[in-house]
Amino acid sequence: MVLCVDTPRMREWITERGIESILLDLIGSLEASFTRWLEFERAPRVASHSHHGVIELMPTSDGEYYAFKYVNGHPINPSRSLQTVTGFGVFADVETGYPVLFAEMNLLTALRTAATSAMAAKRLARADATTLALIGTGSQSEFQALAMKAALGITRVRIWDIDPEAMDKFERNMASSGLAIHRATSGADAVAGADIVTTCTADKANAIVLTDDMVTEGMHINAIGGDSPGKTELETSILGRARVFVEHEPQTRIEGEIQLLPSDSPVEPLWAVIAGDAPGRERADEITVFDSVGFAIEDWTALQYLREQVAGTRFAGDVDLITSPQDPKDLFSLVASPALAGAR
Amino acid sequence: MVLCVDTPRMREWITERGIESILLDLIGSLEASFTRWLEFERAPRVASHSHHGVIELMPTSDGEYYAFKYVNGHPINPSRSLQTVTGFGVFADVETGYPVLFAEMNLLTALRTAATSAMAAKRLARADATTLALIGTGSQSEFQALAMKAALGITRVRIWDIDPEAMDKFERNMASSGLAIHRATSGADAVAGADIVTTCTADKANAIVLTDDMVTEGMHINAIGGDSPGKTELETSILGRARVFVEHEPQTRIEGEIQLLPSDSPVEPLWAVIAGDAPGRERADEITVFDSVGFAIEDWTALQYLREQVAGTRFAGDVDLITSPQDPKDLFSLVASPALAGAR
Repeated sequence: MVLCVDTPRMREWITERGIESILLDLIGSLEASFTRWLEFERAPRVASHSHHGVIELMPTSDGEYYAFKYVNGHPINPSRSLQTVTGFGVFADVETGYPVLFAEMNLLTALRTAATSAMAAKRLARADATTLALIGTGSQSEFQALAMKAALGITRVRIWDIDPEAMDKFERNMASSGLAIHRATSGADAVAGADIVTTCTADKANAIVLTDDMVTEGMHINAIGGDSPGKTELETSILGRARVFVEHEPQTRIEGEIQLLPSDSPVEPLWAVIAGDAPGRERADEITVFDSVGFAIEDWTALQYLREQVAGTRFAGDVDLITSPQDPKDLFSLVASPALAGAR
Repeated sequence: MVLCVDTPRMREWITERGIESILLDLIGSLEASFTRWLEFERAPRVASHSHHGVIELMPTSDGEYYAFKYVNGHPINPSRSLQTVTGFGVFADVETGYPVLFAEMNLLTALRTAATSAMAAKRLARADATTLALIGTGSQSEFQALAMKAALGITRVRIWDIDPEAMDKFERNMASSGLAIHRATSGADAVAGADIVTTCTADKANAIVLTDDMVTEGMHINAIGGDSPGKTELETSILGRARVFVEHEPQTRIEGEIQLLPSDSPVEPLWAVIAGDAPGRERADEITVFDSVGFAIEDWTALQYLREQVAGTRFAGDVDLITSPQDPKDLFSLVASPALAGAR
């Protein structure tokens, strides 16, 4: 039997523990993992592209535990009442090769993505940041807002989405959050005066949701929607004005905003900032970009944290996907038909 | 909800349907997939090696359905009462990116491996073959014997294993199978007079379980135990005397028996033989080797077949690992705490 946190259990755990409390914990766990970044296997994810979307496997291991996430990205899905992104993950023991946890990873990915964004913003945004602009108020948006609130003390959120109903939804969901919400009339209106700009749109296209003229000195840009080949959000000239931070450079060159730049455009590894080996923001007027695409080490960390939290609690069910014959060499006895097995 | 064939259901389905009947069906499904081999994505599996063993992900897609298998290989596991190989698989709809089936794949892999071996042997062994030698009587051995019986009419099996208890187990499990079993006193004794030799040992080492002098004209060698870097079973000079057939050459160069040969040693693609584009065995006296390492297309085929067989039956349970909010952009509402959600 393997621990299984299915969707109902995941919902119950998150609701009971509280999103902001989990986000703060997760930021701590992510900081620990990023600090020992080089101890993990780091390979670009394995993608299967079709004209419908992409299905990806994201594995990594620190030599003690192995994890992978299955995740899809299908921008057309909401039009047929399906999620753009779904996913599940598996955590496994390297010594035995046996899985130890299956988990829903749609909600968990939203949490780890928001926590990663906030972890980066703690080092890359100005210390006096109070205002977040959110371009795109889809599935990720509320988690992003709460992470910036919990970790950085953001008090104001300026939102913009081409879908008015998505903005309605955000306002409704965040009504009691304590955040002051400004519903903007355009992307430029949302960004005006913001200290941190999070772009989280879903189109699988090189769309420009943030133009160069919207970006002012001192801004931190958290670009999370541009995360696969042909899917970007920023006018490229913004990247030339900014210090650009990345997770795993080889993957970001393929999938991130920098896919539109020459392959030697300057980038800085986020892990080195988290580890204290390299500076984060150095001047109040510099522009910083976290060109986030999501990396397997973040999922590994979320699964490890989840397992610690739920093992032995009512939030962990089980699933029987691993055969265990009494004699490990006697797989056959599990399926021997009565006739074949004779008197046994 | 996603269909889930967990271990108890897989056991029940196999026992009720009967192993030989499933094997014959699977051979037919595999023949269909091998015939359209080039329509599938073909990438080497993604391996995470440690000194304990290996954990692998094996994805492929035909553009309509995507599948992957998680599989480990830990030769030390039986010494601690664990399986050398465990696994599970997922079948998914490319159009939506949503998984449609989770399944145990320890038993299912044993079946697909045996079916693949028999499919190859139908083309590569002599048509009058009656005698199988099995070197290694571990988890795979009974499935191998039954597949060769069902598909080729093999009537005699000569077995050898360095572990006498593993031979006891094979004799016990096959007592009512209708196969005449000869318990050999050495590998050479087992191979003597055999038409087909299957090597299925598990050591993660370049062991030689089949030496050149044991191999006589007209033999077909089904080498399934050499399947990862540093893990082979045949004396390399055997390969020089034989026509060598492979699944996906780039993967087999890394993992198969041919890893010990120069990278341009001659090999022939098995799929072309199955498709009727290339000849199988041409002469009664030639030596043929199927250097089998297992490829993702075989797992895809087994999962597709399983899904067809169990959907809507009592053999399919379900698992709730995919979140489905009513409004696909409103993931947050699934976890909004009562306090945060206010009066909703």
